[in-house]
Amino acid sequence: MTESRRIPIVEKITSANDFVAQENREIFKQNGVFAINIMAAPGAGKTALIVKTIELLKNRLRIGVIEGDTASVTIDADRVLLAGAPAVQVTSKGECHMDALMVREGMKQLDLAALDLVIIENIGNLICPAGWDLGSQACALISSVTEGDDKPYKYPAIYRNLDVLLVSKTDLLPYVDFNLSYFQQGVEMLNPGLITFTTSAKTGDGMQPWLDWLLSKCQGQP
Amino acid sequence: MTESRRIPIVEKITSANDFVAQENREIFKQNGVFAINIMAAPGAGKTALIVKTIELLKNRLRIGVIEGDTASVTIDADRVLLAGAPAVQVTSKGECHMDALMVREGMKQLDLAALDLVIIENIGNLICPAGWDLGSQACALISSVTEGDDKPYKYPAIYRNLDVLLVSKTDLLPYVDFNLSYFQQGVEMLNPGLITFTTSAKTGDGMQPWLDWLLSKCQGQP
Repeated sequence: MTESRRIPIVEKITSANDFVAQENREIFKQNGVFAINIMAAPGAGKTALIVKTIELLKNRLRIGVIEGDTASVTIDADRVLLAGAPAVQVTSKGECHMDALMVREGMKQLDLAALDLVIIENIGNLICPAGWDLGSQACALISSVTEGDDKPYKYPAIYRNLDVLLVSKTDLLPYVDFNLSYFQQGVEMLNPGLITFTTSAKTGDGMQPWLDWLLSKCQGQP
Repeated sequence: MTESRRIPIVEKITSANDFVAQENREIFKQNGVFAINIMAAPGAGKTALIVKTIELLKNRLRIGVIEGDTASVTIDADRVLLAGAPAVQVTSKGECHMDALMVREGMKQLDLAALDLVIIENIGNLICPAGWDLGSQACALISSVTEGDDKPYKYPAIYRNLDVLLVSKTDLLPYVDFNLSYFQQGVEMLNPGLITFTTSAKTGDGMQPWLDWLLSKCQGQP
């Protein structure tokens, strides 16, 4: 007869992704880095906005970029490097979103101790990235006026867990049918009081409040 | 001792999705219907182009639409109904692409014998839909000029298995940086000789060759 033994039963309380994400967040914090996960549909102007942000902030903040891409072309990372920030590209090999481990691999290629801000440019997709914590301290969505004002109604999940929303390409407002108050009404339903900036990376209009927000977040780091 | 028996060994030759897709294709064919799967990024103008197509073709073809959506709002289906075509909406409950079974559910709600053309409006996404055969006879992609001319380079998979490509929102060309020959060079690399139409659903420019193509496909049905 075997002795009666107590077997510890441990419940799975988190996913492997969330475990790695939490570690990422700790590593960013230890290095005094504010990390932001920028999501958007393909062609919403993520890279244009990131490049403009680097140009306008590079004398005040040390910025690094982790570029998520489905293919291995370095179009976006090249533009970031040209703007004057270190960039690392992580390729998802066809996957439709970034995960925390992809971000960890990117983090290893950056000198985090020498940075204040890490921008993670997610893969262009309004659906799948919503469900994956990358370990950033904040999540942003860029929504371009050319995509239409119905996007919050049609892709609600991604609007729910945002810390900040950027409406982009406002220079094209005169040429498209985009009702800002209908758009904002949809956002308000999903994420009441969400901080929202209306911007044009092309003309620079509306960039300053977004830059101020980023600066305040980075200054809040230890 | 047991008798020696021959056990048939059957290899899995297809996925359940591809099996259902093949059946869908047979059902469309039996009903003399040409079915086309229209894919695009969010906000590329899928619904606008479908609505314009219905308006211009409804006196010559009997058209039905299967609308794929991640959420249950019926914004797109309402627009299609208004344009004068029967529409059925299939909700993916957050899934990032349509599959053959969603299309089958939609087909059941349409009177296929009374239709010539079924347009399947896929969920707005440039990555995941590429891998899912829906059982249509053709696959189309809509790429808007506002998304930028680098999309074939950055989302190559979806360009590879297309039968037809529609460049949309050409009325906005004067206001955006979009190099059509750079775009087409990327497409040619992935899908040589791909039939391409440049269109504006807003002004109607360039719609006729696309309508002629659809008419020729529908007339080719038994």
